[in-house]
Amino acid sequence: MKTIKEQYYIQAKQWMIEAGKIIRERMDQPLFIETKSGRNDLVTEMDKNIEQFFAARIEQTYPNHRMLGEEGFGDHVTDLQGTVWIIDPIDGTMNFVHQQKNFAISLAVYEEGIGLIGCIYDVMADDFYHAIHGEGAYKNGVRLPRLNERLTLEGTMLACNHFWLCTNKLVSYASMEKLVRSVRGVRTYGSAALEFAFVADGTLDAYMSMRLAPWDIAAGMILVREVGGVTTTVYGEKINLLDNGPILTSNAGVHGEIVAYTKHKK
Amino acid sequence: MKTIKEQYYIQAKQWMIEAGKIIRERMDQPLFIETKSGRNDLVTEMDKNIEQFFAARIEQTYPNHRMLGEEGFGDHVTDLQGTVWIIDPIDGTMNFVHQQKNFAISLAVYEEGIGLIGCIYDVMADDFYHAIHGEGAYKNGVRLPRLNERLTLEGTMLACNHFWLCTNKLVSYASMEKLVRSVRGVRTYGSAALEFAFVADGTLDAYMSMRLAPWDIAAGMILVREVGGVTTTVYGEKINLLDNGPILTSNAGVHGEIVAYTKHKK
Repeated sequence: MKTIKEQYYIQAKQWMIEAGKIIRERMDQPLFIETKSGRNDLVTEMDKNIEQFFAARIEQTYPNHRMLGEEGFGDHVTDLQGTVWIIDPIDGTMNFVHQQKNFAISLAVYEEGIGLIGCIYDVMADDFYHAIHGEGAYKNGVRLPRLNERLTLEGTMLACNHFWLCTNKLVSYASMEKLVRSVRGVRTYGSAALEFAFVADGTLDAYMSMRLAPWDIAAGMILVREVGGVTTTVYGEKINLLDNGPILTSNAGVHGEIVAYTKHKK
Repeated sequence: MKTIKEQYYIQAKQWMIEAGKIIRERMDQPLFIETKSGRNDLVTEMDKNIEQFFAARIEQTYPNHRMLGEEGFGDHVTDLQGTVWIIDPIDGTMNFVHQQKNFAISLAVYEEGIGLIGCIYDVMADDFYHAIHGEGAYKNGVRLPRLNERLTLEGTMLACNHFWLCTNKLVSYASMEKLVRSVRGVRTYGSAALEFAFVADGTLDAYMSMRLAPWDIAAGMILVREVGGVTTTVYGEKINLLDNGPILTSNAGVHGEIVAYTKHKK
């Protein structure tokens, strides 16, 4: 007998694999690209079509559930009461447009505010990450080990974009420069969902982003939590999932050390 | 009848595939990691063993050729007379150690200073890039199209590490901040050889690095040239392959525009 969490996971995975197949098949067709909030905030027909794909299926299968999606085809969700599916149809749209790889579908199911399942599907690499509340995180069905909390900052692989070192209102430049010089290496991949998945599987040890929305982090937070990692605001505060703000997800062993750098606002 | 260039390519590919197999097989064994010039300049037994693998085969097969390799098992090469194999056994050693992926074997053959063949093998993704002088560049045997030179800076995906935005003697901080804000996106992957290959296949449009040695760029320069791209110093000057210095490789359509930013030394 499958638990309800496991049933959601099986259903979600089936839809995500199907959506991934659609994306791969249509990859060579011309994209209709629009810009949203700014020049580099892209959205394509594909983002919209894939979100509609999920919205239709969730509505039909779980009529009492709500859906919160990046492109707005779900419900207008302002609280996490009941069961809410939180979906980013294509996380890393710029990579999708420019590289035709390095993007992901991100899907999470929350019940009364508790993250039950989180799934991140790297469509082109065909890597499927999932986590079930209290039952661990997995990559392609293989359980991910708990993160080694004896990690030091000197051994840390950090992901962040280059704007953290440009003039900004979130952190002190001097502190960020020190942080970048203190860690083992810094990478930038351009997909929040994948960067969360990479923290969960140890490819990275920490990831910080200036402004993430619920659909960027909902699944990733569950994955990271299930291997013992921590997700907070970049200042170490508890996250309100429905806010948009600067976040830090990391191995618990270095979380406090990183916050010691980032908490210095200008 | 194969040309000499094609013969080198066939031989090089065979050795590289064999070396990749050895790396994958030994991946789970404990690594003996040493640091070289600095804390994050790593070298492992694997780097050394793989370079020795190539040195032995080249010496046996082409006794009159010389080899220049990162770990020093080749010859002491101070000019490019005759035929010189330039090899990085593991480019992206930090990724190799930390991520067990995202590293490459880089191999080039130069004859009287002319790059005849360049091969870059992404070992874990099993992606093999190669170029033959005058005969184009290929990814997994499929010819890569010539880069579209109508690219604009606004549409450019740039790769560089975060130190370009830290205090440094190479470029003006203000110019670099403007550059980062002018392009479509900035990525950091941590393997020069792969970043060159990604410029050649359009995953990236430009890559700049503060300090690259011959073995980091020898193969990549040939790949990028064969699709119409350009590699110079970061100030737009001609490269001396045997120097170590800051380099820029890019789509020819935006090369001048990027140099306009980077040429502002402090």
